[in-house]
Amino acid sequence: MNETELKEILSGILPLYDHAVRAAVLRQQELAKPPESLGKLEDISIRLAGITGRVQNKIERTRIIVFAADNGIVNEGVASTPQSVTLLQSINMTRHITGMSAIAACFGTEVEVIDVGIASEGVPPVILNRKIRLGTRNFALEPAMTHDEVLSAIAVGIEAAKAAKMAGVDAVGIGEMGIGNTTTSAAVLAALTGEAVERVTGRGSGLTDAAFELKKKVISDALLLHSPNADDPIDVLCKVGGLDIAAMTGAYIGCAYYRIPVVIDGLISVTAALTASRLSKDTKSFMFPSHASMETGCRIAEKELGIEPWLRLNMRLGEGSGCPLSFQIMRAACAAMNGMATFSEAAINDEYLEGIRDNSAFMSVTEREGQ
Amino acid sequence: MNETELKEILSGILPLYDHAVRAAVLRQQELAKPPESLGKLEDISIRLAGITGRVQNKIERTRIIVFAADNGIVNEGVASTPQSVTLLQSINMTRHITGMSAIAACFGTEVEVIDVGIASEGVPPVILNRKIRLGTRNFALEPAMTHDEVLSAIAVGIEAAKAAKMAGVDAVGIGEMGIGNTTTSAAVLAALTGEAVERVTGRGSGLTDAAFELKKKVISDALLLHSPNADDPIDVLCKVGGLDIAAMTGAYIGCAYYRIPVVIDGLISVTAALTASRLSKDTKSFMFPSHASMETGCRIAEKELGIEPWLRLNMRLGEGSGCPLSFQIMRAACAAMNGMATFSEAAINDEYLEGIRDNSAFMSVTEREGQ
Repeated sequence: MNETELKEILSGILPLYDHAVRAAVLRQQELAKPPESLGKLEDISIRLAGITGRVQNKIERTRIIVFAADNGIVNEGVASTPQSVTLLQSINMTRHITGMSAIAACFGTEVEVIDVGIASEGVPPVILNRKIRLGTRNFALEPAMTHDEVLSAIAVGIEAAKAAKMAGVDAVGIGEMGIGNTTTSAAVLAALTGEAVERVTGRGSGLTDAAFELKKKVISDALLLHSPNADDPIDVLCKVGGLDIAAMTGAYIGCAYYRIPVVIDGLISVTAALTASRLSKDTKSFMFPSHASMETGCRIAEKELGIEPWLRLNMRLGEGSGCPLSFQIMRAACAAMNGMATFSEAAINDEYLEGIRDNSAFMSVTEREGQ
Repeated sequence: MNETELKEILSGILPLYDHAVRAAVLRQQELAKPPESLGKLEDISIRLAGITGRVQNKIERTRIIVFAADNGIVNEGVASTPQSVTLLQSINMTRHITGMSAIAACFGTEVEVIDVGIASEGVPPVILNRKIRLGTRNFALEPAMTHDEVLSAIAVGIEAAKAAKMAGVDAVGIGEMGIGNTTTSAAVLAALTGEAVERVTGRGSGLTDAAFELKKKVISDALLLHSPNADDPIDVLCKVGGLDIAAMTGAYIGCAYYRIPVVIDGLISVTAALTASRLSKDTKSFMFPSHASMETGCRIAEKELGIEPWLRLNMRLGEGSGCPLSFQIMRAACAAMNGMATFSEAAINDEYLEGIRDNSAFMSVTEREGQ
């Protein structure tokens, strides 16, 4: 994909369908409940209407797309986990034995793992091969990626969104696997927002105090070395990003272009969402939050995206582990919109009461069970 | 049920099984993830182990038990909705067309509606008849209930928990329907905690400023009139409680006695949970939170119970509307505990890699779909 093709896709992203938003707001007002008493479940149902053009929606088929890649910056000692874990856990996700994938399996959520840059030639076919290179370059020394590599990774993300659309997926979650990617995310966040490195950097999967200080220094030094242009998200990705973040950015763009509701989950995911929103602010309308991550950088990106996490579970596993639960919240929003009676439908008439008297099909649960 | 029988049940509530808690903590440490990175999902799985005695649990069959009753205090003009709505919405819950019940249907959660005091003789059989009286007395003038009525309502709640246990329900949620019950709840909360009426009273389903001031005055006056004894929860229930709150208190006691995980949802539910915890503090171990209600009194009760809501959805519908989503969070906790690999199981060996090469069963999702 070249720059022109990306621009075409970005300009093809349409805003929410206004007629459907208005119809959904009206429907919510007619439902038999105190005004706005279902809070964000109402907001979700209204936004889903704006995405699909229909007042009634369903979130049944769901898919977490995991972009896996390695990061050259791990050579600087910023990660507590060996690089080989990227491949290992990517494989384990397809076996449904990692945190995210075990939870996904329980809810029937599909998991698609895509290799955009795992630093190994031995990636098995259970992982979709879209490898761009064997991990990024070490951005302490040189830019992480070329312009073309970033565009290729974005194209992988867009393709993944298209595949989900073609398969009839109702909602997508954006996950990741890549040792070192909390470092690349913090660097991208600092570059895009101008926030202090201190404020956007967390301990990842559990650094010691010394390694945490080193991580912040590595990021600060790299930002000084490369001076990424905050107004040019592609430049930021080239200099201090990762292949996973670039592909995830593409996935958000693709979900907006193909009009698929997309769940943001965790630091790397929200960093890519912010990057996508800088390329086209219309992408924001398609994004939905997940849990409040313990990684500090999330707050800053969420604020700019105008999203507030739904779940407070003190999670910091990554992978996209909150997505399956966010899909359930979206399902609940649809269930209320589709299943609740309007004020006029909620009225009980004599005919109904007549019909249920002395009819065992209308016995209470406990009495049906003969208890 | 008399006082002695209640005391027997209260003293029959056993704490969490320590051996299972310890085994579950150990198992969580062995799972392949950074320590505590699944946050509250880990805590949930550990507490479930303490409840059942097993490290691996399931939350498949779930039931929301709704206690419906009317409140004499509505004669004082503290509610914005007519009393007839208690019966109307109780029926509609069984039709799965209210907010809570529409969401419950979507997740396969059963809804059991129990009449403990609806002010109507015409309650259809779809609602379990355990009516104690046609609504409480107006506690602005006289105590809401007699001692015997409160004990009978508690017995209904205990019976409902037992029925759920017998039916093989894995988790219960405690819901309610009763016009005027945010007033009774605020009065009970103020009486039990000594908090100012101002701090525990909210606007319910949407009072005007004038009606809100009246609601607070009615509660303050009643507390002065009756001087409920904060150290005697039964006395508090008699004087300013409701038949729903009393039955819900019994349900929490029953869930603890029969060792069923139980979800607290909303102001009335948390008020009953607090009341139960004052009768036996061991009941707390069996309680799980739900969404953060917009009703202010919830914060105070939650703090004393040591629970923090999982969901931030700005909901204030009542009914038990957050329970279906809380059950999903508990399911996710079980899925992680049961499905994740330990560090040694997560290791990939050559045999595994050999097995998945050139085997189409192990193709990526997108390639299997031929995209």
